[in-house]
Amino acid sequence: MRLRVLGSGAGGGFPQWNCACSNCARFREGRFAGSARTQAQIAVSAERNNWVLLNASPDLHPQIEACRDLWPEGRRQSPIRSVILTGGEIDQIAGLLVIREFQQFDVFATAPIRRIVTEDNSMFRVLARVANQVTWRDITVDRTFETHGLRVEPFSLPGKFPLFASPRLLEDANPGDAVLGLLISSTSGSGTMAYLPGIGSITDALLERLSACKLVFFDGTFWTDEEPLGIPGITRTARQMGHVPVSGEGGSLERMSGLKNTRKVYLHVNNTNPILDEDSRERRIVAEAGWEVAWDGMEIDL
Amino acid sequence: MRLRVLGSGAGGGFPQWNCACSNCARFREGRFAGSARTQAQIAVSAERNNWVLLNASPDLHPQIEACRDLWPEGRRQSPIRSVILTGGEIDQIAGLLVIREFQQFDVFATAPIRRIVTEDNSMFRVLARVANQVTWRDITVDRTFETHGLRVEPFSLPGKFPLFASPRLLEDANPGDAVLGLLISSTSGSGTMAYLPGIGSITDALLERLSACKLVFFDGTFWTDEEPLGIPGITRTARQMGHVPVSGEGGSLERMSGLKNTRKVYLHVNNTNPILDEDSRERRIVAEAGWEVAWDGMEIDL
Repeated sequence: MRLRVLGSGAGGGFPQWNCACSNCARFREGRFAGSARTQAQIAVSAERNNWVLLNASPDLHPQIEACRDLWPEGRRQSPIRSVILTGGEIDQIAGLLVIREFQQFDVFATAPIRRIVTEDNSMFRVLARVANQVTWRDITVDRTFETHGLRVEPFSLPGKFPLFASPRLLEDANPGDAVLGLLISSTSGSGTMAYLPGIGSITDALLERLSACKLVFFDGTFWTDEEPLGIPGITRTARQMGHVPVSGEGGSLERMSGLKNTRKVYLHVNNTNPILDEDSRERRIVAEAGWEVAWDGMEIDL
Repeated sequence: MRLRVLGSGAGGGFPQWNCACSNCARFREGRFAGSARTQAQIAVSAERNNWVLLNASPDLHPQIEACRDLWPEGRRQSPIRSVILTGGEIDQIAGLLVIREFQQFDVFATAPIRRIVTEDNSMFRVLARVANQVTWRDITVDRTFETHGLRVEPFSLPGKFPLFASPRLLEDANPGDAVLGLLISSTSGSGTMAYLPGIGSITDALLERLSACKLVFFDGTFWTDEEPLGIPGITRTARQMGHVPVSGEGGSLERMSGLKNTRKVYLHVNNTNPILDEDSRERRIVAEAGWEVAWDGMEIDL
């Protein structure tokens, strides 16, 4: 099973267009020890020339061009066969608008997320311009499905449906369908990867699940719970936004310190997070705890 | 008045993610005489630190990072003050989702286009998360308005509302509100620029209008009327898609050959158009007719 990190940043990427925080300002001034990051995006493959996207980031166009494995062959044959949505936030779904050029592929999502995309946003009708263009396939939580040589086990994470979604669509929706984690392996028996780019808290049951995984991509959005409060316009803590912080009591560093046999990689790192700075104390703490920080272009074979 | 071409390509940009046409394939193989192009996007400024965007392309994030004039100052102060929409296609509006981070700015659009964005697509509620975040201002065709030192005269072009828009929103809509051209000058008296990135035919009245302009950015989507028919999935000619071709009878080269005092620049160039290839016969024809082909990073002061 091959994994390509096409994007490793949180919503807005790094640097972020209207932000001049210490990280963003130093990056633009050319005095930052770290790389730019597009919005979180992973591609997975268990079969030659067949790739599956985990979510669809708004940066998908440059992300595809930067990854030779995803270039088209023949006249118009993209190797992208399906997209699995773990939620309905803009940085998870807007990329579907980028891959609107008459390509056939499947989109796996829970029914409420499918409805938010297809019934609440007319723009996505561009995915249904020709017969059999995009096929939506409903995900049922805790029911394993397969796509192009991958076995995927979706499970519910604490989290909310997007704030923008129309209330009428959510009246009968199961809250457990809002945010998913994924366990992914190849049907031919590879090790298992866990994909958890947005998660509000870490239960013991989750730790148990992760201990059986070879690899986990985990929510690295914020360093502290208070970090987003320093961002103009935001009035919620990291946890209130559905992101368990990296540091502090109950943070992912502490809670996951017992996972000794799992390769641990932070993904979805916000532009304000000090772990983006390879010279920072925080980055050193993370590295010493055995964590990696994903970067755009990272490749892992499992 | 300063102009920055942030993107010069048509929808999907160049190369396009799932296309391996001669242009796209040769570009990826490193044997193409021409540059990559993000989707059409122009920024205009008549005042220091105040910039106005013409449409909002899906590529706005990398486009802003590539243009130093648009970098934020202070903690969070983007110099982007307003966006003017000339239509409601995805490559004209999706970029609004990219600049969703609590920034205050104005969006100028006709009422039906505003309704398609704000009433037909719940995602755009992210532009109204805090008070006074984005202010929508209705454009009336043929009525001049001002924004940040620019005088803008919008006029109706032949064209249609996006195919994806819900019919109920278009029942009472004036077809003349679907696609706009813009004449833009500074309130302090600069020369006039015409912005016409998508136009289905060229009337004598339009030629009269353009003859008074110093500069025109004009629809350079397709070389011939039949060109899109060679693209899998597309069953309409260039004109049927609302794009007068560059070449042939009634094409822009022929129709605009009399405009001797206007600087003429093709914009919104599709990935299949041979004028992207600087070594091509078609590019030579265009150059010999006095036209330029816009490129990402082009700067013009007027």
